[in-house]
Amino acid sequence: NGRGEVGDEFETDVLSGFQTSAVLSDSAREKTIFIRGKLADEDAVVILEKTPIREDTLAELFTGSRLKLEMRNDIYSTYRLQPPPHLNEIKTTVVCPATEKHVKKYQRQESFLVEETGEDYKTITLPYIQKQSFSVQWVHNILEKKAEADRIVFEDPDKEVGFVLLPDFKWDQKQADDLYLIAITHQRNIKSLRDLTSDHLPLLQNIFQKGKEAILQRYNLPASKLRVYLHYQPSYYHLHVHFTKLGYEAPGCGVERAHFLADVIQNLQADTQYYKTRTLYFPLRADDGLLSKFKEAGRL
Amino acid sequence: NGRGEVGDEFETDVLSGFQTSAVLSDSAREKTIFIRGKLADEDAVVILEKTPIREDTLAELFTGSRLKLEMRNDIYSTYRLQPPPHLNEIKTTVVCPATEKHVKKYQRQESFLVEETGEDYKTITLPYIQKQSFSVQWVHNILEKKAEADRIVFEDPDKEVGFVLLPDFKWDQKQADDLYLIAITHQRNIKSLRDLTSDHLPLLQNIFQKGKEAILQRYNLPASKLRVYLHYQPSYYHLHVHFTKLGYEAPGCGVERAHFLADVIQNLQADTQYYKTRTLYFPLRADDGLLSKFKEAGRL
Repeated sequence: NGRGEVGDEFETDVLSGFQTSAVLSDSAREKTIFIRGKLADEDAVVILEKTPIREDTLAELFTGSRLKLEMRNDIYSTYRLQPPPHLNEIKTTVVCPATEKHVKKYQRQESFLVEETGEDYKTITLPYIQKQSFSVQWVHNILEKKAEADRIVFEDPDKEVGFVLLPDFKWDQKQADDLYLIAITHQRNIKSLRDLTSDHLPLLQNIFQKGKEAILQRYNLPASKLRVYLHYQPSYYHLHVHFTKLGYEAPGCGVERAHFLADVIQNLQADTQYYKTRTLYFPLRADDGLLSKFKEAGRL
Repeated sequence: NGRGEVGDEFETDVLSGFQTSAVLSDSAREKTIFIRGKLADEDAVVILEKTPIREDTLAELFTGSRLKLEMRNDIYSTYRLQPPPHLNEIKTTVVCPATEKHVKKYQRQESFLVEETGEDYKTITLPYIQKQSFSVQWVHNILEKKAEADRIVFEDPDKEVGFVLLPDFKWDQKQADDLYLIAITHQRNIKSLRDLTSDHLPLLQNIFQKGKEAILQRYNLPASKLRVYLHYQPSYYHLHVHFTKLGYEAPGCGVERAHFLADVIQNLQADTQYYKTRTLYFPLRADDGLLSKFKEAGRL
């Protein structure tokens, strides 16, 4: 069973034939595991993540589960709770066929902080990005409503300042505690922070304003509960903005990778060349091709 | 059913009578929830945490679960996996009877993102800091070697650009994986980021340079493995710089609170008034007195 359309939820047994070849990484803290393997003779990556515990299911969880006592000591006792399957799902993402690049992306790796001057960007990073020509076909599919159209939370269709707002894959949308949305610009020629000048202020301000309004309307979360930022380096070179819930330690919200949209706007207002001239710092994984380029250039 | 001995695993229905009164805190990222309630008329705290995904159960997980397709786009698809209960347990801890102290321990305080203009700093934040006159006696004790003298990793005794570098209390110094050091300036009149001008560049550059050198010497960690930043708001108003290991998700390293020292230096080089005039964003807990001041001023 392998057919299906976007938004069409039905039961399948596609994973019963999955053959694990290696665990790429896992996190006991986050209850995730990234697995490499074969799915009907094709290379695949399968990502499993247990779902957050929802307050609205607690009553059923306590009455409908099996419970086994493990340990008792004074006022403390521990148990193993076995909930009914529909209350305890695992969010599963399949990438198939997966390329070597996908495998690398999910493989646990050491990271190094890179110092990229404006000149380094022009002579090292930009040529590397252009040579790789990373596919952003899936982004274009979203913008053209060829995929994920039913997931769109908000759209401003304007060609210059417009964008599509939709949930990030990492978010299962069951609770606002780990809210994670992405705003993708309709403009297709902005690769990253490095391309931004004061010309883009109307675009950035529009995303900031309308993104916050849409989230307030749809999820009842005010701006004071949101962290709105860009990544540098981004994981794909089509400008996008991250909206995550304040207090949720979203992966990639650390100071070494995230740039507050509000700061980006202020910096461009003060200096249109800010992101063309500043030295930017970001972590690169040991197996990242870009890191090799920085090493070859004697910049690490 | 309530009896049982340590190590004696048996089935019980003790939680089916649990009455939830409030969720004290939860983490969508860690899949945990802390609940307050009643268990047979006694106050209780119940802690649920989903278990990590184990590699040795993957084969059975893939063959023995139900799977529902959610979304498909290009090479990506997402599913909801419903594993059999014995493969997908929830670790459950019960504290009963629980005291008010237990409840407070597990209670999470909500945070709000505050927007502080340069003017807000002068009219709201600065008067609040001054009125509170938070004690930094413990900082002076360190600088004067009246306390923690044996913990000092490095010192530059210069009155203008000097500082003391020592391990943060959060770090047990057992391994470099979660390295966390603090550099405290000998200058005593710099409260925070907001006080910095280009006059302080020699101080900041000295901390950056000599701090990195000292950490390389003592812990064999090069600058490319370090995250060096200031907090705003800081937790005490005597200028200090955080050095943490890149890859260790130290509390407070998120973009909403951390300011890269390298960025601070560049910003001050470009504009001596940068941190006096910019709007800065930071989270404040619901019970923080400063938050009330922002609310009173109609700024939230």
